[in-house]
Amino acid sequence: MTDVHNIDDQPIYVINPNSTEAITVGIDRSLEQFRGPDTPQIICATLREGPRAIESQCDIDAVVPLLCHRIADLGARARAFVIACFSDPGLYSARGVTSKPVFGIAECGVRTALTLGHRFGVIAIRPASTVRHLQYFRSLGVSDYLAGDRPIDLGIAELADQERTFIRMVEVGKHLRDIDGADVLILGCAGMAPFETSLADALKIPVVEPNKAAVAIALDQIKSCI
Amino acid sequence: MTDVHNIDDQPIYVINPNSTEAITVGIDRSLEQFRGPDTPQIICATLREGPRAIESQCDIDAVVPLLCHRIADLGARARAFVIACFSDPGLYSARGVTSKPVFGIAECGVRTALTLGHRFGVIAIRPASTVRHLQYFRSLGVSDYLAGDRPIDLGIAELADQERTFIRMVEVGKHLRDIDGADVLILGCAGMAPFETSLADALKIPVVEPNKAAVAIALDQIKSCI
Amino acid sequence: MTDVHNIDDQPIYVINPNSTEAITVGIDRSLEQFRGPDTPQIICATLREGPRAIESQCDIDAVVPLLCHRIADLGARARAFVIACFSDPGLYSARGVTSKPVFGIAECGVRTALTLGHRFGVIAIRPASTVRHLQYFRSLGVSDYLAGDRPIDLGIAELADQERTFIRMVEVGKHLRDIDGADVLILGCAGMAPFETSLADALKIPVVEPNKAAVAIALDQIKSCI
Amino acid sequence: MTDVHNIDDQPIYVINPNSTEAITVGIDRSLEQFRGPDTPQIICATLREGPRAIESQCDIDAVVPLLCHRIADLGARARAFVIACFSDPGLYSARGVTSKPVFGIAECGVRTALTLGHRFGVIAIRPASTVRHLQYFRSLGVSDYLAGDRPIDLGIAELADQERTFIRMVEVGKHLRDIDGADVLILGCAGMAPFETSLADALKIPVVEPNKAAVAIALDQIKSCI
Amino acid sequence: MTDVHNIDDQPIYVINPNSTEAITVGIDRSLEQFRGPDTPQIICATLREGPRAIESQCDIDAVVPLLCHRIADLGARARAFVIACFSDPGLYSARGVTSKPVFGIAECGVRTALTLGHRFGVIAIRPASTVRHLQYFRSLGVSDYLAGDRPIDLGIAELADQERTFIRMVEVGKHLRDIDGADVLILGCAGMAPFETSLADALKIPVVEPNKAAVAIALDQIKSCI
Amino acid sequence: MTDVHNIDDQPIYVINPNSTEAITVGIDRSLEQFRGPDTPQIICATLREGPRAIESQCDIDAVVPLLCHRIADLGARARAFVIACFSDPGLYSARGVTSKPVFGIAECGVRTALTLGHRFGVIAIRPASTVRHLQYFRSLGVSDYLAGDRPIDLGIAELADQERTFIRMVEVGKHLRDIDGADVLILGCAGMAPFETSLADALKIPVVEPNKAAVAIALDQIKSCI
Repeated sequence: MTDVHNIDDQPIYVINPNSTEAITVGIDRSLEQFRGPDTPQIICATLREGPRAIESQCDIDAVVPLLCHRIADLGARARAFVIACFSDPGLYSARGVTSKPVFGIAECGVRTALTLGHRFGVIAIRPASTVRHLQYFRSLGVSDYLAGDRPIDLGIAELADQERTFIRMVEVGKHLRDIDGADVLILGCAGMAPFETSLADALKIPVVEPNKAAVAIALDQIKSCI
Repeated sequence: MTDVHNIDDQPIYVINPNSTEAITVGIDRSLEQFRGPDTPQIICATLREGPRAIESQCDIDAVVPLLCHRIADLGARARAFVIACFSDPGLYSARGVTSKPVFGIAECGVRTALTLGHRFGVIAIRPASTVRHLQYFRSLGVSDYLAGDRPIDLGIAELADQERTFIRMVEVGKHLRDIDGADVLILGCAGMAPFETSLADALKIPVVEPNKAAVAIALDQIKSCI
Repeated sequence: MTDVHNIDDQPIYVINPNSTEAITVGIDRSLEQFRGPDTPQIICATLREGPRAIESQCDIDAVVPLLCHRIADLGARARAFVIACFSDPGLYSARGVTSKPVFGIAECGVRTALTLGHRFGVIAIRPASTVRHLQYFRSLGVSDYLAGDRPIDLGIAELADQERTFIRMVEVGKHLRDIDGADVLILGCAGMAPFETSLADALKIPVVEPNKAAVAIALDQIKSCI
Repeated sequence: MTDVHNIDDQPIYVINPNSTEAITVGIDRSLEQFRGPDTPQIICATLREGPRAIESQCDIDAVVPLLCHRIADLGARARAFVIACFSDPGLYSARGVTSKPVFGIAECGVRTALTLGHRFGVIAIRPASTVRHLQYFRSLGVSDYLAGDRPIDLGIAELADQERTFIRMVEVGKHLRDIDGADVLILGCAGMAPFETSLADALKIPVVEPNKAAVAIALDQIKSCI
Repeated sequence: MTDVHNIDDQPIYVINPNSTEAITVGIDRSLEQFRGPDTPQIICATLREGPRAIESQCDIDAVVPLLCHRIADLGARARAFVIACFSDPGLYSARGVTSKPVFGIAECGVRTALTLGHRFGVIAIRPASTVRHLQYFRSLGVSDYLAGDRPIDLGIAELADQERTFIRMVEVGKHLRDIDGADVLILGCAGMAPFETSLADALKIPVVEPNKAAVAIALDQIKSCI
Repeated sequence: MTDVHNIDDQPIYVINPNSTEAITVGIDRSLEQFRGPDTPQIICATLREGPRAIESQCDIDAVVPLLCHRIADLGARARAFVIACFSDPGLYSARGVTSKPVFGIAECGVRTALTLGHRFGVIAIRPASTVRHLQYFRSLGVSDYLAGDRPIDLGIAELADQERTFIRMVEVGKHLRDIDGADVLILGCAGMAPFETSLADALKIPVVEPNKAAVAIALDQIKSCI
């Protein structure tokens, strides 16, 4: 009877495609505002079989079959899926294994940012990811609106130091705002979720946390698409 | 003491800039899914001093000062504003009279649609509005993704006949889907909100109701921007 | 009998939508070259009910109904209208209240500049207006050809000092030419008309005075469109 | 002493780069409205050494050295040049042989059309020229605004029949307006000048005659650039 | 000593990522013209562990890790790689597992087609793939030059009938050429290689066989990039 | 009997449109890798009647009729033509005088570069040529992918000093790579062919020699187009 579900009981699954549980926890906390007695359940899940981090196109491509397998498994009892990695791995593939709506946080983050400003800036982790981002932004038709995409460029050990990470994010955010001309910023990594509010406070321009942006759009669409 | 408010008590104002109360009621009902004990209050308001309908660029431009006046008045006790007219009248102007986030339903509807499909179609009321839409879509950088924008082209008397209106919407929606190649549709008028679910059922592709799209994005941003 | 006019008697109205008469006088003088015994009359008018200056989107939107009212009033005895403010306020709205051609100086200035060079630079008054310009240039499809848009950033008192204003315009113009790569410049404010010739002399690249650009295009079109 | 000229005596040269005198006469007549006692002289000249018609890229390229030679010869005693062929042959090359402003009628026609409408249509002579036009429109950045470019496709003998030519122009213009969605038309050949007014009368949308569009812009620029 | 190779002995590997050997044979034959005593060896290989056909985004994403594994294995003894599937699966990922140049046949086919014509048409197998193609063409920046992408829409059994397949390809090609306005065609599937010459003969416009286009570019680059 | 040729005997003609024989020799050497007993003959020819160098739009336009004359002459006994000047002079015109494929090295160089990287840089000789390049890149639809186009800016005497020229090329290439963000470079002059390999060695990113890029594409197309 696994396929028989009351639609009202079906959760939105937010899947962190890397195996680092701490990132899933950070995402989960950032979504607290969307929870309530009358709202659909939001479950954040870790793809345990995924890599510890997703840092290259190889990592991205390697995780897609694993992620699609998970989404196919969960499909019958889900309302919608959010892929919680700023590379939107497997977004189009996932749509082939489930009829439920699937959202990528990068796309939702960028589309949301464009409702808030005229030129968006992205705070990335690594220099190498900015080339991938650019190519993706081109395919979304938003590259003309990109003010800049700049990495904080910290190693794994340094990222563990939250204070240091935040200081770098503020530095990079100021550069994007003051030199590149961004009037809205996007956190270019799912794991940056905990810094959203303090960064917006520090920089005084809107900051988009892409996991939240995707869940907000999902919460709208689950009603109209099913 | 009018400026002292507990942020948690501040509502999102969804302002229908025409004076037709029935449209405000339709919008209000479509937003029911976002309401709950823990979520911000959503208040739909009619701009009584606005015109009965907004059908031309003149109507749009005429309503902007009235709408901005209202938004300036409400600013201190609002969390965010949604301008509930598919022409997004006064969107940039409103941002000049309040520091709270202001969203236009056309922009939010289109950005949301692009997270759901590759080519969007718009169901408009009047032929004349499609030229205005095109120009606006160009300024948003999304015109390359427009599959088509087609009017149901019914007069006021005919629009009062809901069954007839729906039949035309289905006809136009099928044309957008089958001939123009749209894989997601947007309701191109705030007053079409009541038809969202039945249209999606009839056409089997995602349908974006732009009032809801805007409120969903607003619900995300009110946390991070204030 | 107000609607019966000999077409040959009808003037082109150039309407300055702010109430500062001195600006209208400056525009009027710059148009002298287009006047002659056989050419249509060109009348520069001040919108007395407009604001003293148009510096924000709010100012722009507020002036539109007033401006459209004036244009509707004058429509029967005009050949064409030019809206003499670099934000082109109410351009599309005005076209709805008159059947006569209506031109905006920003659009005409940019289109003319592109016949003279490959990358255009804009000399603006205020930093805030450059964001508005960018959005407008996007909707016109010319933003890829924008080399830069830089403000002279002087206050009202400073603008009264013509020598100082000119020195800043030359500085900004050189930056646009030498650093940003502009090969043609546009005066990004109707009030800059008096500086056209001396600026072109100082910078040795074409300078487009947008009031003149619009009147030149209007003089062509009044023959073919009426 | 050939280099010593009073600037006020210098004419604008409108050069028809083909050797067909009748076309030059038609252009000359269409420019009558710009002439007056106080306005710069406008001289229409035929490039006698040019081909009888310019119908292919080969014709275009072949005429460029001849045209540039003529422009270099005339440079010292001209205020500005207009190249009166809708392919704008040698526009950039001509700018290398004279310091005076040089305008192409295709570019000026398209830029002017975009101040009058949102989507322009072009009435061409031959099917083959529409591919050349498209490529040129792309380099001008205006191809997204092209509603359609359709040939009347008449042979030389048929073109001599003015009535027949006009009937075809109206047919093609209606197709561009009603099927392709053009709201402004451009006469895509210098030789179509005589049909401007009657075509606008027949179609009730603005028609741009590109020779006039170029001369209007030239009349503005000769003051500011020299 | 497996890493020590004489560069002159290293082949270009053309990898068919599906397991259908017959397709690899067809590709191999089409590349005959590039072979000679002095030219680098070209080896066509079948990815035996791949799916029988690549028809969906899921198929594409599933094959990427397998393909990258193979490319990583071969990297030390290869000069360059060509991924012989019109979806360019794993192109960016493969570049992460080898320092040798990697080419995708879709990208190379489109870039080559644009050197031959102004508007390219694609002959696809299935309707569903045209949406994927469009998205990819957007990311390559070539979608404005796409005249049309039309499927022959035959099932597997029908594709086995070469005569029938060819008749459909000619039909679709004529539609692309005559109705859509394509002046160059691309075979939108690696398996269509055997039809290149007869299709070009039948349609009299250039036809790009993408496997060959990629190998030609690879043959150039292997000299300059290693 | 001059029109009767065995297709297998027909060479690809690579025509250097300037009269400087030393450049033709450099091009010829760079094409050595494409020669073999089974491959089509590649003949590099100097347009003796051309100018000594092609440095301006005038030079370009002046050479076109001469070049087309030569191509028309050779057409019957050629398989394909390559125009070996980075301005692609007369590319479209040449296609009008021969039915054989004609390739321009600038277009082929850029299209090839885009298969190797995401943002291309161009090393030019003179500052003035970068404006011409930009305009051409716009018409090819590739200007969004241009990282930078920078001249080495050496005079003729300095260019004769190969060591000095190479040092400047490395300097400019580093700027394009490190400051402008290019991940692939194009040699923006046919005469730079001899520096390809050493520049790629020095900069460690792919370098496209456009003569070779064009011949590689020609070698593919001669089979399928004739």
